[in-house]
Amino acid sequence: MPIVTVIGDGQLARMMQTEAIELGQSIKLLAGSRDSSAAQVCHDIVIGDYRVWEDVERAVQGAHAVTFDHEHVPTEFLNRLSGMGYSVQPQPAALLYAQDKLLMRQRLEKMGAPVPEYSAIESVEEALAFHDRVDGAVCLKARRGGYDGHGVWFPGSREDLRELVSELLGQSVPLMAERKVALVRELSAMCARTPSGQVAAWPVLESVQRDGICVEAICPAPGLSDDLAAQARDLSVKVATELGVTGALAVELFETTDEAGNPQIFVNELAMRPHNTGHWSQDGCETSQFEQHLRAVADLPLGSTRPTAPVTVMVNTLGGEEAPDSPIAYRFAEVWRRFPSVKIHWYGKEWRPGRKLGHVNLCGYDATAEGIAETRKIANLAAEYIVNGKWADGYVGKPENS
Amino acid sequence: MPIVTVIGDGQLARMMQTEAIELGQSIKLLAGSRDSSAAQVCHDIVIGDYRVWEDVERAVQGAHAVTFDHEHVPTEFLNRLSGMGYSVQPQPAALLYAQDKLLMRQRLEKMGAPVPEYSAIESVEEALAFHDRVDGAVCLKARRGGYDGHGVWFPGSREDLRELVSELLGQSVPLMAERKVALVRELSAMCARTPSGQVAAWPVLESVQRDGICVEAICPAPGLSDDLAAQARDLSVKVATELGVTGALAVELFETTDEAGNPQIFVNELAMRPHNTGHWSQDGCETSQFEQHLRAVADLPLGSTRPTAPVTVMVNTLGGEEAPDSPIAYRFAEVWRRFPSVKIHWYGKEWRPGRKLGHVNLCGYDATAEGIAETRKIANLAAEYIVNGKWADGYVGKPENS
Repeated sequence: MPIVTVIGDGQLARMMQTEAIELGQSIKLLAGSRDSSAAQVCHDIVIGDYRVWEDVERAVQGAHAVTFDHEHVPTEFLNRLSGMGYSVQPQPAALLYAQDKLLMRQRLEKMGAPVPEYSAIESVEEALAFHDRVDGAVCLKARRGGYDGHGVWFPGSREDLRELVSELLGQSVPLMAERKVALVRELSAMCARTPSGQVAAWPVLESVQRDGICVEAICPAPGLSDDLAAQARDLSVKVATELGVTGALAVELFETTDEAGNPQIFVNELAMRPHNTGHWSQDGCETSQFEQHLRAVADLPLGSTRPTAPVTVMVNTLGGEEAPDSPIAYRFAEVWRRFPSVKIHWYGKEWRPGRKLGHVNLCGYDATAEGIAETRKIANLAAEYIVNGKWADGYVGKPENS
Repeated sequence: MPIVTVIGDGQLARMMQTEAIELGQSIKLLAGSRDSSAAQVCHDIVIGDYRVWEDVERAVQGAHAVTFDHEHVPTEFLNRLSGMGYSVQPQPAALLYAQDKLLMRQRLEKMGAPVPEYSAIESVEEALAFHDRVDGAVCLKARRGGYDGHGVWFPGSREDLRELVSELLGQSVPLMAERKVALVRELSAMCARTPSGQVAAWPVLESVQRDGICVEAICPAPGLSDDLAAQARDLSVKVATELGVTGALAVELFETTDEAGNPQIFVNELAMRPHNTGHWSQDGCETSQFEQHLRAVADLPLGSTRPTAPVTVMVNTLGGEEAPDSPIAYRFAEVWRRFPSVKIHWYGKEWRPGRKLGHVNLCGYDATAEGIAETRKIANLAAEYIVNGKWADGYVGKPENS
């Protein structure tokens, strides 16, 4: 079986290893430390820094394909690896559009994909001009390096914008701005593509965000019209194809309404790797995004994306403000005792407030609005219990041995 | 999360690691070699021999629970570990009945479970007397150490039996004999039980055997009456409870007909660990047998055993007489190109004729006889292609890029 080097040691790499085992592979990892989430569960590890060429070079030795669990590897390293004949997936020319938000906007606009009004920001004057153009509805973004709400700002006034841009440009942060969209909700359209050009799309889902972090995903997106679902799915396939993306692609979308009050979508972000909004596929789909990603980067035919349940809900377990008193195994036990269908995925990371420590998936077999609400309620209760050691609905538990 | 030591390095331990990763665990392994199936994909490995006390002792250091991927660990070691305070799951007193077929028969008979007529065989005379008692329908078994058809004999005549028993007793192989059952088919009733006594049963399935090796499993068993299914399921729960089994339990059953022509079941074997007939649960059930086993041995509440498809078929890929010319990744690709829903599980083992190298699972959404036949056909075609690099139905493939 092909050897796949994964650069990155977080939970995405960890969950790739899960699937690699079943495919008869074992991934080779470039990890920052031996106790990182992925390094805990892999055998073949190179300890090093993805920003150091020599470390990257050691990690790719013998690899049939090189892939990533984040977008932060320097583009020059990726080009160098490509030049040496390594199969870098996604290829640097595609990955660029997940790394640089301004280039992404420009490229998507060129292909006719719906993007919010935007502008490069290289001076305070440009920022203020954009502010006036969009009537103050400004979202300012670092072009590179942002994630989970980092690198995104919503300045409250013209004066705030002036100060912020001045400060960030002073720190040499390359910037862009876009019109803040009047959001109905966020959607995610995911697909995977092989170097040979095969594409397989998953159902379009709803993603619930809090403070710029995905906290919940519901697949398929409830109440989404067939028409808009097809439009979003086709868009993800088009982006994958025209940009030459390989592996998993997440097209994060804003759903809004046009002037006539009809639903409309805009592209928010692209991620070219397994994505938080695709975790539902581990328990709710014939092929999980992690298996699909490994197959895609090795140019193997893609698997069926058929859902195995009418609805699947994923809820992240983010570290709470305080670490709970009870041991984690106790909290898992309480969740499983109350809800035997809840699937827990845990990343082996140390608790830290706001940190993604794991997620839960729950399949629902009733796709009515009430059924979906019930599935969401249970998944959220479970996730909150894992975080806080408390039932948000005041449940006091069953007597022992009941 | 609890640390679980697994004694054994085969595919069962490997597939436990898959689930351990998602549960936030990483299992500690006692492995015979670093390139064994499970050791390839684990981080925390003790290289040693399960028949050497010092090696076992090293492997269990710090473990919250100790479990197995085979039954061959000497009982005295297990007792010693228990005596030292280790949580050995299943406990030696239960495991004994999976290790010794005569004790198992005696114990099951005592609890009123249906077993074929049997006898201890300590002399040639006893063997011949048993032969006459069952009109020559003799199945001779080694009491300990058999697997996959090893340690089971069907002597063709009284004379063959005399020679065989004489030879085996001469080699000090402890023996028993039982009446050969007029088989309709084989079934498997699986459940898991925690040390606290919670039991969860999976649907009863049909197991297809060739030369004493499981080659296919169909879950649920097609055409099984609700009554017989309940009887088999209740039997597995009873065995688990009365014997104090912990972890996964497979009760392998013979389905036959009584004198009135009604279906009847007899217990064939017990396995106290994840079992080949439970592999379907990886893709066809909310909780796989590997996850359930890990939860059970750590005394955590059990997961839902709800199937996610009307029927799931598992087919083993056993090494063929000759290794195929094509690389394994090419064969996987051909299978996936033709059948995108086929899930391949591969054990990372070297090819050897008859060796269990992997298996495929396929969910079917049509539970009619024709639908089940079609799902079985596809799963078998896929497995055969992986083994031989040839389509058994003469399929010649699609043109490139179609």
